[in-house]
Amino acid sequence: MSYAPVTPAVVAELRAIVGDKSVLVDDERIEAYGHDETSAEEYGHLPEVVVLPTTTEQVAAVVRLANRERIPVTPRGAGSGLSGGAIPSFGGILLSVERMDRLIELDRANMTVTVEAGMVTNDLAHLVQAEGLFFAGYPMSVETCFIGGNVAENAGGGKAVKYGVTGRYVLGLELVTPTGDVVWLGGKLAKDVSGYDLKQLVVGSEGTLGIVTQVILRLIAYPKAASDLLALFRTPREAIDLVPLIMGQGIVPTGIEFMDRLSFQTSCAYLNETLPYGEAGAMLLIEVDGNDAARVEAELFAIGDLCEKHGALEVYVGEDRTTIERLWSVRRNIAEAFKVASPVQSLEDIVVPVARIPDVLPELERLSAAYGMQIPCYGHAGDGNLHATLVKDPAMDLGTWHANKDACLRELYRVTRDLGGKISGEHGIGLKRKPFLDDVTNPVEIELMRAIKRAWDPANVMNPGKIFDV
Amino acid sequence: MSYAPVTPAVVAELRAIVGDKSVLVDDERIEAYGHDETSAEEYGHLPEVVVLPTTTEQVAAVVRLANRERIPVTPRGAGSGLSGGAIPSFGGILLSVERMDRLIELDRANMTVTVEAGMVTNDLAHLVQAEGLFFAGYPMSVETCFIGGNVAENAGGGKAVKYGVTGRYVLGLELVTPTGDVVWLGGKLAKDVSGYDLKQLVVGSEGTLGIVTQVILRLIAYPKAASDLLALFRTPREAIDLVPLIMGQGIVPTGIEFMDRLSFQTSCAYLNETLPYGEAGAMLLIEVDGNDAARVEAELFAIGDLCEKHGALEVYVGEDRTTIERLWSVRRNIAEAFKVASPVQSLEDIVVPVARIPDVLPELERLSAAYGMQIPCYGHAGDGNLHATLVKDPAMDLGTWHANKDACLRELYRVTRDLGGKISGEHGIGLKRKPFLDDVTNPVEIELMRAIKRAWDPANVMNPGKIFDV
Repeated sequence: MSYAPVTPAVVAELRAIVGDKSVLVDDERIEAYGHDETSAEEYGHLPEVVVLPTTTEQVAAVVRLANRERIPVTPRGAGSGLSGGAIPSFGGILLSVERMDRLIELDRANMTVTVEAGMVTNDLAHLVQAEGLFFAGYPMSVETCFIGGNVAENAGGGKAVKYGVTGRYVLGLELVTPTGDVVWLGGKLAKDVSGYDLKQLVVGSEGTLGIVTQVILRLIAYPKAASDLLALFRTPREAIDLVPLIMGQGIVPTGIEFMDRLSFQTSCAYLNETLPYGEAGAMLLIEVDGNDAARVEAELFAIGDLCEKHGALEVYVGEDRTTIERLWSVRRNIAEAFKVASPVQSLEDIVVPVARIPDVLPELERLSAAYGMQIPCYGHAGDGNLHATLVKDPAMDLGTWHANKDACLRELYRVTRDLGGKISGEHGIGLKRKPFLDDVTNPVEIELMRAIKRAWDPANVMNPGKIFDV
Repeated sequence: MSYAPVTPAVVAELRAIVGDKSVLVDDERIEAYGHDETSAEEYGHLPEVVVLPTTTEQVAAVVRLANRERIPVTPRGAGSGLSGGAIPSFGGILLSVERMDRLIELDRANMTVTVEAGMVTNDLAHLVQAEGLFFAGYPMSVETCFIGGNVAENAGGGKAVKYGVTGRYVLGLELVTPTGDVVWLGGKLAKDVSGYDLKQLVVGSEGTLGIVTQVILRLIAYPKAASDLLALFRTPREAIDLVPLIMGQGIVPTGIEFMDRLSFQTSCAYLNETLPYGEAGAMLLIEVDGNDAARVEAELFAIGDLCEKHGALEVYVGEDRTTIERLWSVRRNIAEAFKVASPVQSLEDIVVPVARIPDVLPELERLSAAYGMQIPCYGHAGDGNLHATLVKDPAMDLGTWHANKDACLRELYRVTRDLGGKISGEHGIGLKRKPFLDDVTNPVEIELMRAIKRAWDPANVMNPGKIFDV
């Protein structure tokens, strides 16, 4: 791919579109837009110019300019992504939606909220909670990530077992297409078969099929009761074996989170947290919510009984919100804790059929030994989504690390495929997994994706180089 | 569009692919494949040949032949569709999946079932119920429709308020692409962002993006308790106004069905059913299910209280399965009852934001008066999905009927759009609504759809002429 450079004339035109103060060029602030939460050394790339539009029309005008001049445009939310999706790999224009963070409408009668793409997920959650309403999306980066990013990545998180992922709550979205047209897809509708479901195609397309500028989200009544349970097990296998047993009971927990010893130990040390985990080799953190406190308690105790009957060392039921918040904080901070402990690592996101999770663990042990790296494992066990993390041994040189990591990932992904799984459950392909996608995907499927990308983005300017090459 | 005819040489080749007994040509059985549940006079068209493959490879070979010869292929399930999607408008090859009705796998551990596209929905439901599992799809034609058809149309039905539509349960599908390749999309996975969500794009695409041959469906534990409530109201408005009130309570009924007087009267007469509806002008039929009988009862009584507080004439709680089944039978048979009472009609499927339903009813009255036709209304009120039905007055001549019907539909669809709605919630566009789609849809959206269709089906042989023209 060859693109035109961002010339002074282009910058002048961008200034005319979004205003002088909304164009960054030759500015130290640009550095922050050159990476996300993946390794900046491995995937980072600076944009030539950053634009910070405040309206959909400005976004559309920038995209039309990019098409005319053949300059790549990379849309960006909070930059909290974990696969490099928001990195401007070909330079060009970085378009951040950070100044588009308004509430457009809270529609109580239809139980929907319409927001701009740049609203922080937690801000949205608090805003609707004040009205007794609940947004069920809950990525682990909930305090920083933007709704637009959640939509672009089809974010999952800690409540997906019961509530599903972001896409289930996206009723409508305003899209600036790769050629700079503006269109609303979907609406405040519970069902709709008036043509192809383009809205759901855009969800999870990582900004390669256009820029989402507004989103209509479905809300539900705020659950009146929620409680959590922490169960300690001798081995990861014992913990993981519980997951299909729980799911088969007719109880649908909000989330079933798994952590192996290395994961919770590292996170507890990072947080100075003193969970009484003793000799436990693995934990399950299970949440149940609902509208009836007695029912929630009964379900939680039923799960607790099941855990005890199947070998749990200890079962703690989090009676108060403070304890619950401490437990979740340990879970949420694992990735950050590992980053501090060992900055060179590869955070993975494989997903397998729930009943196949136990088959993944011995493979991780085998790969850990074969490639000389620790591979702690934690994640959303109720979804079959495991964040195995390859951690570089400080003694290993960087060259060996990269070679071993790539070889290990290739094996891990093939194992995942052979178990009926996929290489990303919620983080996306982006740059990080692009070199591996072909190896584990039917070429017919990739070609069908490419055909859509080519048809919608003939100049290939919309977030090029992500997921696959065109 | 111009296509090649099905020559004797093509028939011979089809016989070689699927076997002599699986090719119908010059056969009186072909007539049945020339229409669906829409008016045969208005939309019907005979195929040149019918093929009845039994394997995915046969389907793929037929599609490759069609591409080579430029002959249209129309996939067909049970023929219970309501928008003409399975009608071979350009003749050519009608490919029925009726002989592909096998259970491939019931996976208890992962709570999934894999079936061929030709399995009848009710057969599937019974099969998994025997294992304590539940398939939440529930189209009104559940006794005849095929799973493949449900997927192609993204069927809704009577349980969608709580459980969503078919697409939510489709975890994976085997697709024969428009060019005759075979690919599995998705898998037994709770989440997956490894590239575009092509599976969900195929769901609801009405057979224009390929032929679904197998489907992996997500199952849930069979709800241990279910009960229903029938509430009678003086006017449709009073009934409909209850819907957003119920939805705002944090109770999620399985279904909220609405019937106006003309609808239930006609269905009761057809069934010789003696519901005590007295002077009621409208009914709500509400189902609640769950795993706790006491909770189900409490929720149902809470809904009943709400109905009484807001003017219900009577509230009946269906204590036994027989009464419940009678109520649902009245609801399910409305369409059939009207067909018998007045065979010339147009069954509609508009969907609006739930809180806007009350605004639809006076518009229906206005249109009824303006165009001289009865417009009974019933449907899935909890989803905002209303089956208004335009019924020809026996005294009106056919020419006037067609002109008035088209003019009335054009108005109805514009009203629906202006309320934030769409012209089809679950029946699809097909042939029936194609002439109206452009009028109520942003041309950018149609063009994005067309771009996908062109890219996947360059010879335009896969169910051509449906939804939009290429």
